Amino acid sequence: MSKAIPSRSEDYSLWYNELVKKAGLAENSPVRGCMVIKPYGFAIWEKMQQTLDKMFKETGHSNAYFPLFIPKSFFSKEASHVEGFAKECAVVTHYRLKNDEVNGGVMVDPDAKLEEELIVRPTSETVIWDSYKNWIQSYRDLPLLINQWANVVRWEMRTRLFLRTAEFLWQEGHTAHATRQEAEEETVQMLNVYAEFAENFMALPVTKGIKTENERFAGAVETYCIEAMMQDGKALQAGTSHFLGQNFAKAFDVKFANKEGKEEYVWGTSWGVSTRLMGALIMAHSDDEGLVLPPNLAPIQVVIVPIYRKDEELEKISEVAEKFTKELRARNISVQYDKRDTHKPGWKFAEYELKGVPVRIAIGPKDLEKGTVEIARRDTKEKQFVAQGETVEHIVTLLDDIQKNIYQKAASFKEANTHQADSYEEFKEVIEKKGGFVYAHWDGTSETEEKIKEETKATIRCIPLNSNQEEGTCIYSGKPSKGRVLFAKAY
Amino acid sequence: MSKAIPSRSEDYSLWYNELVKKAGLAENSPVRGCMVIKPYGFAIWEKMQQTLDKMFKETGHSNAYFPLFIPKSFFSKEASHVEGFAKECAVVTHYRLKNDEVNGGVMVDPDAKLEEELIVRPTSETVIWDSYKNWIQSYRDLPLLINQWANVVRWEMRTRLFLRTAEFLWQEGHTAHATRQEAEEETVQMLNVYAEFAENFMALPVTKGIKTENERFAGAVETYCIEAMMQDGKALQAGTSHFLGQNFAKAFDVKFANKEGKEEYVWGTSWGVSTRLMGALIMAHSDDEGLVLPPNLAPIQVVIVPIYRKDEELEKISEVAEKFTKELRARNISVQYDKRDTHKPGWKFAEYELKGVPVRIAIGPKDLEKGTVEIARRDTKEKQFVAQGETVEHIVTLLDDIQKNIYQKAASFKEANTHQADSYEEFKEVIEKKGGFVYAHWDGTSETEEKIKEETKATIRCIPLNSNQEEGTCIYSGKPSKGRVLFAKAY
Repeated sequence: MSKAIPSRSEDYSLWYNELVKKAGLAENSPVRGCMVIKPYGFAIWEKMQQTLDKMFKETGHSNAYFPLFIPKSFFSKEASHVEGFAKECAVVTHYRLKNDEVNGGVMVDPDAKLEEELIVRPTSETVIWDSYKNWIQSYRDLPLLINQWANVVRWEMRTRLFLRTAEFLWQEGHTAHATRQEAEEETVQMLNVYAEFAENFMALPVTKGIKTENERFAGAVETYCIEAMMQDGKALQAGTSHFLGQNFAKAFDVKFANKEGKEEYVWGTSWGVSTRLMGALIMAHSDDEGLVLPPNLAPIQVVIVPIYRKDEELEKISEVAEKFTKELRARNISVQYDKRDTHKPGWKFAEYELKGVPVRIAIGPKDLEKGTVEIARRDTKEKQFVAQGETVEHIVTLLDDIQKNIYQKAASFKEANTHQADSYEEFKEVIEKKGGFVYAHWDGTSETEEKIKEETKATIRCIPLNSNQEEGTCIYSGKPSKGRVLFAKAY
Repeated sequence: MSKAIPSRSEDYSLWYNELVKKAGLAENSPVRGCMVIKPYGFAIWEKMQQTLDKMFKETGHSNAYFPLFIPKSFFSKEASHVEGFAKECAVVTHYRLKNDEVNGGVMVDPDAKLEEELIVRPTSETVIWDSYKNWIQSYRDLPLLINQWANVVRWEMRTRLFLRTAEFLWQEGHTAHATRQEAEEETVQMLNVYAEFAENFMALPVTKGIKTENERFAGAVETYCIEAMMQDGKALQAGTSHFLGQNFAKAFDVKFANKEGKEEYVWGTSWGVSTRLMGALIMAHSDDEGLVLPPNLAPIQVVIVPIYRKDEELEKISEVAEKFTKELRARNISVQYDKRDTHKPGWKFAEYELKGVPVRIAIGPKDLEKGTVEIARRDTKEKQFVAQGETVEHIVTLLDDIQKNIYQKAASFKEANTHQADSYEEFKEVIEKKGGFVYAHWDGTSETEEKIKEETKATIRCIPLNSNQEEGTCIYSGKPSKGRVLFAKAY
């Protein structure tokens, strides 16, 4: 099977799909809309999980696990929540199969029908708040800061590996607080955790903002998000943090006695990121030769490839390579020494390029003579010879440089593709011809938002936080606007 | 809510249930048969996961993720597999809800019926071997050594927290090999990994063996297992490793070209442990005051409780406590300093006893005067005063002692409750009056096995490995026996 992938300029969408498959990240499964995450893809996801999990624990959260199934009746308890999720959920109706005497194989046993159907969780607010009702009596039980790593199912009709799949892996934080202020602070804190993770680990600059009512999570009072820009200029929502107000507390009757002994409803938040981040990571940085992984998330940070003709040469090269391997591992750098004799160096170079390994060391007989090694970095494809005695220090610095460079490149791209539009004509032209992010004035109505979406396919990604807001007039309706919002076509 | 739990002698079963709930490990959910794993319980499971995951990776395995849903038709492909799992599975038949105009709430949308029903995975052999068909072409693709951490569902009618639940968490290893021998070696290697984990981390002595045909995994050629003894003398299967032969390779047509270019079917294994291990851990070691956790799996290994009347006292105690906390953490020991003023020391003592924290340090004003602290160990309840300067070293040694002591205690109990029976009368008397493990001769037939089960409720837990086998005559039928097998009542 050829490992070559189409170029981005040729067909961005096909480039992505082929890259995901050929780099061994994921593939479609025989189950409609569900993917198989392959070992190399899962190793990247594990690094994401470990990093985020540490960040959640450092901010005081504990992990727990709630049931996969949600009784149908739970959904009806929060009106907008059921509205948001009922249309795309997997429903369990029976609990047994039996032999199919007519057609062979097995069939659903009609005698094993559930009294109440179960929904495979699309998100767990309902089943979790039902538990919180028993866990929370007094202000002493608050805050309750819980996270869950889990699989969820949303019956998407048009799916794409990592970006939109019927089943996906994610984490969902669900917290309960005594005051509105504390819950709001938690919502913003977790948004900041996500932004920090995106920027420092994924090397992905993000824009923080608030969703419009149309795009708000079903059941939230306010949805905060981080939006990233992909290499085709489209936006990708990379994480959301919801301030739930007292909506779920009221739906599930979760009250606490405050310090004065008075009963109040609890305030809630929820926040999540998913395997969608894998899609963002791939699409933001990779090139026509394959993946480009930021060192902070690369399962293999350094690969060493020996170049040799004779076995005696390999023996001497291996001595050097194994010394580096040991020294680099002692510095917490993950190294693979690939001395397989089943593949030629050129094949290996292409393979590790495809897999986005940040640094490649090649060692040949000439290097042994000169006391050097050849070091190639994946991001810029630059190569240089480095003295063996300086190799370890060089790589420590290099990995840091690569991490920064990948971020900088993405940040420059984002900046170069971020525009302002002051009229609808200008807006349409920018969206159509240039793409990218467009800041424009909006009158604050869902009607205008929907019209613009219909006519241009651009949606309001968010009302940005921390921007110096100037008043103006809506590009579409001419009505007053309190500030510019971020429009883009989106994944 | 009182934290007191019933005693083991009073009602072993109730003791277990109340302990699981009151120690904050898990509780029943509103979804029939499904549990909620609470933060403290999940923290223990996380320690199990991390340890096992490291052991799997050290033996060359990678993690991956396969779909939650399995098309119904996949099940029919391996005949004994469908036989084993079809009778207790959750079936997804629809993919949408709609508003129920008649009764209010939501109902299943009859227009959203799936063409082929999906089974929520009870285990993943079928969906994984269907993928392996595309992953394996040549001997160069083998061995394929993959593990998955996942949730699975088996529709159990009688459930108990951790021990038997409709949904549970587990890991399932699925490997593919070029030769029978290699697959058999893998099966035994993973059994040994499980036994090592049980003994060194769970402090749980186990007996390794092979299951009889009756108890074999549906689709396996041979099932290896580890069996542990609980404090009521009953056996608990703590892990299984299956040699699958070429059964799934044939069912899913997975062939490889060997070195000579000839096509052969692949050889397979699968192996798993689940949240059931939590039940084993709890039941094997805990006492009437609560959990007893081996230090190697305790989320909190040391708790420090200040004893004080005045705030100045607390201040001075905190200085000492925080110094210990820092020093112990530097030694990779997890410490909690509980200086909450909302609870009295006595309450805290009982709480940490209930939660099984291996070591408790109490520091009061007299300790400050004398330069000592009081150290209490959870397993033996012994207390002693130790000079502050020797505390850290003392605790490092003590944790090691406690780990060994808990193992030793379980091993002595297991030995004391392991018997031989040479006639059926003797067998029945031992099973009924003493309980525990009984080694007895068996003629090797399923018929005899089932009769004994019917009459005594004791089952053959395994045909033990590594035992010096003497020939004899079956206690039930009087027919020849090749060696003693292990009988017990079991969870």
